[in-house]
Amino acid sequence: MKSEKISDAVVRRLPVYLRFLNELSRREVPTVSSQELGQKLDLNPAQIRKDLAYFGDFGRKGIGYDVSYLIEKIRQILNLDQQINVALIGAGNLGQALSNYNAYLKDNMKIVAVFDASPEKIGSQINNITIQPIEVLVDAVKGNHIRIGIITVPDVEAQRVADQLVAAGIEAILNFAPTILKVPAGVRVHAADFTTDLISLAYYLDGGKERSEHDSKMVD
Amino acid sequence: MKSEKISDAVVRRLPVYLRFLNELSRREVPTVSSQELGQKLDLNPAQIRKDLAYFGDFGRKGIGYDVSYLIEKIRQILNLDQQINVALIGAGNLGQALSNYNAYLKDNMKIVAVFDASPEKIGSQINNITIQPIEVLVDAVKGNHIRIGIITVPDVEAQRVADQLVAAGIEAILNFAPTILKVPAGVRVHAADFTTDLISLAYYLDGGKERSEHDSKMVD
Repeated sequence: MKSEKISDAVVRRLPVYLRFLNELSRREVPTVSSQELGQKLDLNPAQIRKDLAYFGDFGRKGIGYDVSYLIEKIRQILNLDQQINVALIGAGNLGQALSNYNAYLKDNMKIVAVFDASPEKIGSQINNITIQPIEVLVDAVKGNHIRIGIITVPDVEAQRVADQLVAAGIEAILNFAPTILKVPAGVRVHAADFTTDLISLAYYLDGGKERSEHDSKMVD
Repeated sequence: MKSEKISDAVVRRLPVYLRFLNELSRREVPTVSSQELGQKLDLNPAQIRKDLAYFGDFGRKGIGYDVSYLIEKIRQILNLDQQINVALIGAGNLGQALSNYNAYLKDNMKIVAVFDASPEKIGSQINNITIQPIEVLVDAVKGNHIRIGIITVPDVEAQRVADQLVAAGIEAILNFAPTILKVPAGVRVHAADFTTDLISLAYYLDGGKERSEHDSKMVD
């Protein structure tokens, strides 16, 4: 059991493992090898073994990983062995789309409250959750033990919403606004910026394999 | 100038640098240090210097990086020195939200076509783009020199849409469906899976700083 700091890249792969392991569990598959995981998830098996070794000695040579045991361990590591309440701020198209994903968030994590500033949205429902006015955000977050906030408001509003979430004692923020948030050191922010994803894909155009040829144009 | 393979993590940071550099350029700031970049982007300055060194010797000691020169180089590296056409497949809430981001995709990258399977959506417009039937996808992608596809259809439809995009000669896919796509080796897929982002945030709850204390519960 290592106690060293785990990189964000490793932490981000754990939910991917978990999803596939849950699928195996549903199909009553008892064990899985790092090779099978690698093939299905398009990852290097050595990378997978290294990732999982951070958390303990899960695998057994020639047998692989016990699926239910690995699910239990990853859920513990990800703090999913408890109910985690999530708030969504911004009930526009993106907010509405994200609230649909509650169905995929099986693992004790749930969007339990939605907030918006627009009077014509307040009181209406998306996915059985009543949209509340942004003015009650701080009290509602505190009162419902909400620990993660998802920001889907326009970028000019994002910092103000983040400040309110911080004031309410939120621990983590998933920010969809294309802006960099300032928060205290104890609050974790992940940027879920679609434009960054999309623009970085452009790098792989013109045959990502022939980068050396492509690179030559940049040699001065 | 190194020609080694650049990691995906580095490639994903380049659009983040570019966005902030564009902001500096608008404010007519001529140079920027890795310290300033690091402070603004919440990244380690040494990491930033290392990232940018992959592409050549951009910075100058005591002066920093020339903003316009760095913008030009990053745009070249990301293939943004040409127009890149993007198609969006799935005009639901998420698709509509993403099409709004065209305003942020200043760098010669543009969503130029939207497709959907639902008859009541076809012919209507989102953000001045007419929604086309999914049946014309292959011809439209070929005819409009579309090189990147964004998949925002339900997960059960995602693989079929990916197959059609591949048949049409697409080079890269940004997949928002929570499913793993099978594509030929030459096609690059990025998973923009919101649930993965959100679940990985849970790891940082209960005070990410005190992981060693937290880890102790996992020692057998």
